[in-house]
Amino acid sequence: MGRPRTPLLDRERITTTALRLIDETGDFTVPRIARGLGVQTGSVYHHVDGRDGIVELLRERVCAAIDPATLDLTPWDAAMEAWARSYRAAFAAHPRVIPLLMTSPVRAPRVLAQYERAVGVLLAAGFEPAGIMPLIVALENLVLGSALDLAAPEAMWELADGTPTPRLAEALEAAGDGRADRAFEVGLMAFLNHARALREGR
Amino acid sequence: MGRPRTPLLDRERITTTALRLIDETGDFTVPRIARGLGVQTGSVYHHVDGRDGIVELLRERVCAAIDPATLDLTPWDAAMEAWARSYRAAFAAHPRVIPLLMTSPVRAPRVLAQYERAVGVLLAAGFEPAGIMPLIVALENLVLGSALDLAAPEAMWELADGTPTPRLAEALEAAGDGRADRAFEVGLMAFLNHARALREGR
Repeated sequence: MGRPRTPLLDRERITTTALRLIDETGDFTVPRIARGLGVQTGSVYHHVDGRDGIVELLRERVCAAIDPATLDLTPWDAAMEAWARSYRAAFAAHPRVIPLLMTSPVRAPRVLAQYERAVGVLLAAGFEPAGIMPLIVALENLVLGSALDLAAPEAMWELADGTPTPRLAEALEAAGDGRADRAFEVGLMAFLNHARALREGR
Repeated sequence: MGRPRTPLLDRERITTTALRLIDETGDFTVPRIARGLGVQTGSVYHHVDGRDGIVELLRERVCAAIDPATLDLTPWDAAMEAWARSYRAAFAAHPRVIPLLMTSPVRAPRVLAQYERAVGVLLAAGFEPAGIMPLIVALENLVLGSALDLAAPEAMWELADGTPTPRLAEALEAAGDGRADRAFEVGLMAFLNHARALREGR
């Protein structure tokens, strides 16, 4: 029978350890993963395709929390809206992984399959092919910026006593609680309205 | 004469070292800053108000690259557009600092003063006070998400040979180069159109 060379369990444990390191410290290294698992660094490399392979395992893990059924909704703008909300929630659970995943190329097959479906929704809705990736990336920028914001403290501006910023103080007072959610709603509505206008050639 | 307790030069050097560590590793620690400067860790603490103080020095440093004259432009939407473009460029130069600054409260006086001016632009344009911070934060989410995207490789999706993602391949081919800039333009136009509609009560 022999031991399988890349047992699923070990890739899962490597991914879990890498994600914990990122949640705690903002990054991972293969030697630190090995220490976390109590194995030699070389053993980790037996199971994954280098550091880049671990990044793709992290991408699959985090994106697995995005509800794929959102992209089945109709019409297309309901699908995009629900996908954006689920996408934001998935990444808000691990905000420190965002810079890492945003700055390395997407290779994970299951994640590529999700882009395939999102593109399919917009193609079927009649969008010009040339405009589809810019729309999807604009939505991702909003979603991931907002996921980072969701990880920030509610009181994001600490005004000095005897504030020389009276208008900022007024605007903060008027806005009330729920900064991150309110801002996400503004951005999402802006995106959806713009996409509807583009589709209708307005 | 004596040595000043917090000479500007040392705060500048601490900030420069912290920013270099973040650019290289994604984070900083006070002991690492001390090693980078060839001093004892305690010496660093003599010059700054702890780790949080260094974060605020980093915020002032990065935000100093945002052109303050943008917020003097008229009308208000020209000011917001130019501010967003300059804000994005400033953070695109240091993308790995974004998660750190987005998730700790703003205390830096010069940065608070910039928010004061941005709020002032929107108040003077007639926006409802309660809606101003959600608008500004929505714009920041877009700007900072896009600044992270600008740091990503141009070829962000690596499709497998014999791709099972034909629609994604078509959309990528149709979109051509300049992913990050095109997506930012879509997001920024969406934001500005939405803000204009809100202001006019549409």
